[in-house]
Amino acid sequence: MEKADVVVLGGLSGITAGISCRRHYPDKRVIIVRKEGTVLIPCGIPYIFGTVGGPENNVVPDGLLESNGIELIKDEALSVDRSTKTITLKNHEPIGYEKLVFATGSLPIVPPIPGVDKSNVYPVKKDFVYLEAVLDKVKDAHDIVIIGGGFIGMEFADECRKNHKVNVTVVEMMDRCLMMAMDDEYCDEAQKKMTDVGVKILTGERVAALEGGDAVEAVRLASGKVLKADVVILGIGAQPNSSLAEKAGLELGFRKGIKVDHHMRTISDPDIFACGDCCTKESFFDGRPSGVMLASVATSEARIVGANLFSPYMYFCGVISVFATIIDGRAFGVAGMTERAAKENGLSIVVGKAEAADTHPGGMPDSTLLKVKLLFSAQSGILLGGAVSGGKSTGELVNVLSACILHKMSADDIVAFQMGTHPALTSSPIAYPIVNAACKAVLSIRKR
Amino acid sequence: MEKADVVVLGGLSGITAGISCRRHYPDKRVIIVRKEGTVLIPCGIPYIFGTVGGPENNVVPDGLLESNGIELIKDEALSVDRSTKTITLKNHEPIGYEKLVFATGSLPIVPPIPGVDKSNVYPVKKDFVYLEAVLDKVKDAHDIVIIGGGFIGMEFADECRKNHKVNVTVVEMMDRCLMMAMDDEYCDEAQKKMTDVGVKILTGERVAALEGGDAVEAVRLASGKVLKADVVILGIGAQPNSSLAEKAGLELGFRKGIKVDHHMRTISDPDIFACGDCCTKESFFDGRPSGVMLASVATSEARIVGANLFSPYMYFCGVISVFATIIDGRAFGVAGMTERAAKENGLSIVVGKAEAADTHPGGMPDSTLLKVKLLFSAQSGILLGGAVSGGKSTGELVNVLSACILHKMSADDIVAFQMGTHPALTSSPIAYPIVNAACKAVLSIRKR
Repeated sequence: MEKADVVVLGGLSGITAGISCRRHYPDKRVIIVRKEGTVLIPCGIPYIFGTVGGPENNVVPDGLLESNGIELIKDEALSVDRSTKTITLKNHEPIGYEKLVFATGSLPIVPPIPGVDKSNVYPVKKDFVYLEAVLDKVKDAHDIVIIGGGFIGMEFADECRKNHKVNVTVVEMMDRCLMMAMDDEYCDEAQKKMTDVGVKILTGERVAALEGGDAVEAVRLASGKVLKADVVILGIGAQPNSSLAEKAGLELGFRKGIKVDHHMRTISDPDIFACGDCCTKESFFDGRPSGVMLASVATSEARIVGANLFSPYMYFCGVISVFATIIDGRAFGVAGMTERAAKENGLSIVVGKAEAADTHPGGMPDSTLLKVKLLFSAQSGILLGGAVSGGKSTGELVNVLSACILHKMSADDIVAFQMGTHPALTSSPIAYPIVNAACKAVLSIRKR
Repeated sequence: MEKADVVVLGGLSGITAGISCRRHYPDKRVIIVRKEGTVLIPCGIPYIFGTVGGPENNVVPDGLLESNGIELIKDEALSVDRSTKTITLKNHEPIGYEKLVFATGSLPIVPPIPGVDKSNVYPVKKDFVYLEAVLDKVKDAHDIVIIGGGFIGMEFADECRKNHKVNVTVVEMMDRCLMMAMDDEYCDEAQKKMTDVGVKILTGERVAALEGGDAVEAVRLASGKVLKADVVILGIGAQPNSSLAEKAGLELGFRKGIKVDHHMRTISDPDIFACGDCCTKESFFDGRPSGVMLASVATSEARIVGANLFSPYMYFCGVISVFATIIDGRAFGVAGMTERAAKENGLSIVVGKAEAADTHPGGMPDSTLLKVKLLFSAQSGILLGGAVSGGKSTGELVNVLSACILHKMSADDIVAFQMGTHPALTSSPIAYPIVNAACKAVLSIRKR
């Protein structure tokens, strides 16, 4: 029987774990097993429908595996026998492993709405051939309804309207789109950008049924409204793809994620690790279970898995949740807690806000107004979260915040932050909004 | 006699110190005294000569003072009497102070080259009227020679060539331009960008004399070369503007900076503070004197001064040195130590390098190749410095590094960094070059 030191089951975080393993343990034989012919860049999937033009322009090159000395078996893993340390495959002989990594990702949630199984109703699967077919349908569509106004739903809406003459409507159950991710004022700003470019947004609306014949023709809402639809995209969220692990007797935890410890080792088997959307996560802030699924978390976990396989020493500190999105050219990002989440958790917080042009002087070309909001613990002054909206620098600005949060910087630390500035690249040193937001917060912290 | 709780002498960091003071001590009367009618944004000065079109588009608005309840006296301070706590002014009655802040900045170094006093030879003064006159000359110039290839010199060169039909030559004493700021490979990349747009660069050349009649006509180099020149810009560097402080009996330190402690209080007088280019600084890394003059440092110090005036509690941790510049649209940035500086200091280091597109997939619009280099202590694995070249995100990427350095993150910490990623805004989570550079370094650190 073929045997590898390490077998990795899965896609993006699997590749990252494999590369990390080969760096740390260059003598080990690593095999990745995956069903998919091609791995898509997950965050790029909405952009297939507009900016990048097709799934072929959004793939993780397999050359990465070759250049890192990783073998690839394109096949479906059917079962894992932990007593013999063997994996049964659909079209290949079984293979043995010394260490096994689950990186099986997530599957889109398909809500039990009547009519959800009609054709032209698409959950967002990370599958090349599938998405090619969805794109074909989108190109000919007249009326697209997107169910779910989270950031995947909003990105799909923004992209679908770009290259296609089509009516796009987003239906969101909550009062605002993006409410799970951002605070009200940022949700409102994002929503306005979206409606300004002609996307219709219906909030506080539940879907009652998908109607039509074999193919969907309309979306009926609980409020009685009926929306014409020849394509429906389901952007409701995703759940851990953990059925194979469960079958192998590994314990599952929150939302059926594979239960892992801080070394990313499954709690059930010392020779089996997991990373990415398929496994359980805890919040950086309080250690409670976190349902956040982000590529940033998945790749961080994957790098830790690779390092820990034969001698666990790296520690995953818990999910901060850092992300950015873009709507009609305006970027929105959050690192750590939102104000809403902090309040729901009963935390006592102090908020500081500041705005400035993202160049200095503001008259430099492509200058955009940056808005920053920071949240600090009222007791300790430690940074708990931050939000940014602005131009292209927003993506890295939330990463500045991520570094500050990870290292428990206080408002005073951020007031004294030494930020590089340049007229064309950043806000001015006087007005740098991360620092100024901290300056405003620091006094409220001190006065308590 | 008029008396204020706080008198601040100076420009940009003075404004920041004043605002910070009024936030922390809202009952205190703050007066800023400065000679200049208008404060220019220092980092924006080169851009007056191209992108922004004139000094009037590069000013710090005095409205900032009004809205923060700060009074302004436009006058020259002639002397400070510390025994009576009084400042003598040129055109106004003397004023008394409770606390005094020196934020008098720096003055350009004028090297003792024969002919340096000819007309049309311009050190870079932060003075509105002066720079208006320089701009007028630049507009009519045929041959501009810039002495000094540091980043001010390079930015001037890039801007002067933009809006004007003119030959621009940079003369640099060292082997490469930007050598004080960046490592060889980045210097070379920057220099190539510059020569590609037609700027002539002469390195390893010393200026022997400026020749001509009343006005400069040529620059003669020690090597014998003669360069035609109707305008000469001196971009040699700057020195602390500390003569008033010296006259007041305050002790000066390294390079004649006003000597301050970690609270930014002068070591000579508990009621006098200083911030910005006019005062001494120490390196974050080893506490040795630092000659770095950056707006990021000046404003950080100024915010600390404002907080500390009536009860010192904030601590300046020493200069990291974070900056970014841009040459023909390509950005270059450094945070912390360069490899050259580390080696000159005899430090044992490990270097990790990585490159990736700054979008993902790379086919997104405006995608630019990012190059990142990180330096870690070989013993402790702590991050000592990093360099980036790339597109517009470079400015905030060096600030991610700044946060990581300030908080002494190790290579392992950076490997596990949770970075937000987005197709249009950042590199991919697999390829994020800050993380990948750390991944490469971490093994060399471990193997030792």
